[in-house]
Amino acid sequence: MDERIFELEEQIFKLIENRQFVELKEILSEMQPADIAEIFEEAKDKEIPVLFRILPKELAAEVFVEFDSDKQELLVNAFSDNELREVLDELFMDDTVDLIEEMPASVAKRILRHTDANTRRMINQLLAYPDDSAGSIMTTEYIDLKKNMTVDEALDRIRNKGIDTETIYTCYVIDSRRNLLGTVSLRDLLLNKKDCIVKDLMDENVIYANTLDDKGEVVSLFDRYDMLALPVVDKERRLVGLITVDDAIDVMQEEASEDIEKMAAILPSERTYLKTGVFETFRSRIPWLLFLMISATFTGAIISSFEARLAQCIALVAFIPMLMGTGGNAGSQTSVSVIRALSLGDIEFKDIFKVIWKELRVAVIIGIILGVINFIKLYLVDFLWLHTFDTGVELAQMATICLTLIFVIIVAKMLGAVLPIVAKKLGLDPAVMASPLVTTILDAVSLLIYFGIAAILVL
Amino acid sequence: MDERIFELEEQIFKLIENRQFVELKEILSEMQPADIAEIFEEAKDKEIPVLFRILPKELAAEVFVEFDSDKQELLVNAFSDNELREVLDELFMDDTVDLIEEMPASVAKRILRHTDANTRRMINQLLAYPDDSAGSIMTTEYIDLKKNMTVDEALDRIRNKGIDTETIYTCYVIDSRRNLLGTVSLRDLLLNKKDCIVKDLMDENVIYANTLDDKGEVVSLFDRYDMLALPVVDKERRLVGLITVDDAIDVMQEEASEDIEKMAAILPSERTYLKTGVFETFRSRIPWLLFLMISATFTGAIISSFEARLAQCIALVAFIPMLMGTGGNAGSQTSVSVIRALSLGDIEFKDIFKVIWKELRVAVIIGIILGVINFIKLYLVDFLWLHTFDTGVELAQMATICLTLIFVIIVAKMLGAVLPIVAKKLGLDPAVMASPLVTTILDAVSLLIYFGIAAILVL
Repeated sequence: MDERIFELEEQIFKLIENRQFVELKEILSEMQPADIAEIFEEAKDKEIPVLFRILPKELAAEVFVEFDSDKQELLVNAFSDNELREVLDELFMDDTVDLIEEMPASVAKRILRHTDANTRRMINQLLAYPDDSAGSIMTTEYIDLKKNMTVDEALDRIRNKGIDTETIYTCYVIDSRRNLLGTVSLRDLLLNKKDCIVKDLMDENVIYANTLDDKGEVVSLFDRYDMLALPVVDKERRLVGLITVDDAIDVMQEEASEDIEKMAAILPSERTYLKTGVFETFRSRIPWLLFLMISATFTGAIISSFEARLAQCIALVAFIPMLMGTGGNAGSQTSVSVIRALSLGDIEFKDIFKVIWKELRVAVIIGIILGVINFIKLYLVDFLWLHTFDTGVELAQMATICLTLIFVIIVAKMLGAVLPIVAKKLGLDPAVMASPLVTTILDAVSLLIYFGIAAILVL
Repeated sequence: MDERIFELEEQIFKLIENRQFVELKEILSEMQPADIAEIFEEAKDKEIPVLFRILPKELAAEVFVEFDSDKQELLVNAFSDNELREVLDELFMDDTVDLIEEMPASVAKRILRHTDANTRRMINQLLAYPDDSAGSIMTTEYIDLKKNMTVDEALDRIRNKGIDTETIYTCYVIDSRRNLLGTVSLRDLLLNKKDCIVKDLMDENVIYANTLDDKGEVVSLFDRYDMLALPVVDKERRLVGLITVDDAIDVMQEEASEDIEKMAAILPSERTYLKTGVFETFRSRIPWLLFLMISATFTGAIISSFEARLAQCIALVAFIPMLMGTGGNAGSQTSVSVIRALSLGDIEFKDIFKVIWKELRVAVIIGIILGVINFIKLYLVDFLWLHTFDTGVELAQMATICLTLIFVIIVAKMLGAVLPIVAKKLGLDPAVMASPLVTTILDAVSLLIYFGIAAILVL
C-alpha cells in the first residue's frame, strides 16, 4: 500500500509543480481522503489552500477531517466565509466539535459564527462533556424510528434522512420522550417483508452507554459485542447520540498507546510521534525520569549504609546488577500482563486471589530454575575458573546470591501482581504502576534482601 | 455493564439449580451471546451441554463462537451428529475454520465429516493460509454484484443472499473472472434511485489486501480508511473473501497485547491472562528472564574487572543503581515510543534521521537538566551533609557522576531510537528491541562510561 501512495505522491508533486490542475483534480478525485491528506501535508504551507480548492466539495470535507490541527488552522484562516461555511456544512457533528476543540479561541469563534443557531446549541452541549467521556466522542446524527412503523416506512425514513447521517446501518427505535426502546439493523429491515412492523424486528436488549461513561470502557463494548455503532443516552435514558465503530477504533488505539507510554514512564501525549515537538516530548518524559532518578538515590543510600561491610566483601558487589535486573524484569513481566488484562477487562478486583495464586506458583518455578542455573554458573565460572569469591566463604557467598535471586523473583512477581490491581481499586491508574515504578521499588527491596541474607550467611 | 451481568448471573444460576428451564430460556433469549458465554463458562462442565440445548438455534451458534476452545471441545464431544450439523450450519466460514484450527485432530476430523463437500473444500483452502496472513482471518461469504445491474436488481440479490452473509453493508462488483472491479455500499444503493446502474455508483479505487499480506498490517487499513469490511484477493486479483471490522478489531487488540508483552520480555501468548495455565505462563516468561540474567553477568564482569580500583573508591559504587536505572528508563522511553510509532505506521525507515535528530535534542536537554539537578543534590546532600565522597577528590567524583549521567542519557536515547528502526528494516521484530534488551545493553554501556570517566577524573 505504502509504495502505491509513494508513487502517486511523486506524480502529484510533479503535477503541482507544472500547475496541471485539471489532471490533478482527476487523480485526486479517485483517491482516499487519508492518502490525499498525507500527501498534502508534505506540500508547502502556501500551496495547501490552493490544492484544497481543487477537491470536489464532499471529498474536500473528508480530507479536511484527516488533516492534523496545524493544517486545519492554516486552512480555516485561508478560507473565505463562504468556503468555511461549505466545509462546515459537509462535516458531521462530532468532527465539527473535534475541530473547535483543537483550534485557538479566535478561530473557534469564527467557526461557531458560521454555523446555524441549532447546530451551535448542539455543539456547545457536546463541548461541555468531559474529555474522556462517551459524550465527547459521540455524533448526534442518527436514524430514529417509531416502533409501529412498517419496514417500508422505516426504509423511506432512512432514504430521506440518511444522506446527513454518519451510519444508517443501525437505527434506533424511540418513544415520544426520545427514550430508547430498541435497535433495528438495516440488515433486518432489508431482509424482512415490507409490511413487517419495526416493533417485531427490534432488539430490545440494547447495549448502550451513558454520556458520562469513560470512553475507554465504552469502546471495549465494541470488542465484546461486535457492534458497528453504540447508542449513547443521558441520565433520563433519552437517546442523545451514537458512537460509530471507526471512532471507537481510534479510541482503542489511543488507549493502547497511552498504556504503553505509561508503562515506559512517559506522560501520554495526544499527537503521533513525529508530530510531537521536541519541547513537548521533553515535557512528557522529564517528570518520571526525575522522579525515578531521585528514587534511585534511595537504592544508593542503601548501598552506602552497607559500604563499610561491602568493602570487606567486594565480590558481592559484582552481582548487584544481575539481581536487580532479574528482579525488575520478573516484576515487570507480571505487572505488564496484569495491567493489560485489566485494560481489556479480562480480570477485575475480585480475581486478585486467583492472580496471586497463579503468579506465586509461576514465581516459585521460575525462581528455583533460575537459582539452580545460577548456582551451576557460579560454581563453574566464578568459583572454579575465575576465583571471584573471598577465600573461606565461597559457598556462603554463592548461596547468598542464589537464595536472594529466588526471593527477589517471588517478591517481584507478587508486587507486580498486587500493585496494579490495588491501584485500579483505589481509582489510580494501573498503567503507572507498571515497569518503572515497580522496578524502582524492587531495586531497593532486592538490595535489602541481598544484604539481609548476606548478613546471616557471610558477614 | 458488569454489574448488570453479575446480577443476571446469580439469577440464572438459581434457575439452573431449580431446573426452571422455561424461565431460563426466556431470559437467555434476550441476552447477548458474549454475556451468555461468560455465564455458561462458570457452570459445571457436565451442565454446559444441558444449558446449551436450551438456547434457540441461531443464538446457540453465536454463543458457541464466543466460548473458549476447551468448552467448544467439550460441547462438540457432547453433541449428537445432528446437533453438530445444526451448529455448523449456522456458523460463518471463518468461525468454522477457527474452530477446526483449535480442536485436536480427532475432533477436527469429526467436524469436517459433517460439512458438505463444497464447504470442506473451502475450509481446507482457508486452513492452508499461514497463521499471520490476511487469508487466515477472512470469511468467504460476501455479496457480489455485476457492474450493469440496476440498484433494484442489486437490492434483490442482497435480499436473496444476505441471510447467509456476514456483512451486507459493503458489496463487491466483480467481472466474469471474479476480478474485483469496485465496491458499492448498501448506503449508496439505498440512497440512490432504483434504476441507477451499479457501475455508476461503485467506487473503483478499492482498498484491498492480498491473501498472504501480514494480518497486522492489513488491519491498520481499517484504522486509516474507516472501513467496515476489506476485500481480500488472490495473486490474480480475484476476489476470494473479506475481513469484517469486528475481526479486524480482535486482531488490533491482539497485536497491541503482543507488542506490550514483547516490550516486557514475555513471549506473546494467544489466550487471555486467566485462561493461560501456570506452565504456559512459565514457558512464556522463562526464556527472556534467563537470557537477560546471563547478559547481566557481563555487567557483573565489568564491575569485577574494576574491583581493585573500586575498593579504593567505594563511594562511587553507591551511584551505580541510579546511573544504570536512569539510563535504562531514558532508553526505554525512546524505544517504546519508536516501536509504537512503527506499529501504527507513523514512522518508517526513511524517517530514521528525523527520529535521531529529534531524540538527540530531547536527550541533550534532559541530560543537562538532570545533570544539574543531580549536581545540586550531590553537593548539598552527599558532600556538605553526609560526607559521602573520598577526601581530596570530592569535586572530581561529583563531576564524574554528573558527566556520566549526561552521556548515559544521550547514548540511551540514541540506542533506543536506532535499534527498533534498524531491527524492523532487517526483518526482525522491533518490539523485542524494547526495554529489556535495550536496558541490558545500556547497563553495560553505562558502567563502561562511568568507569571510563572515573579513570580520567578520579582514579
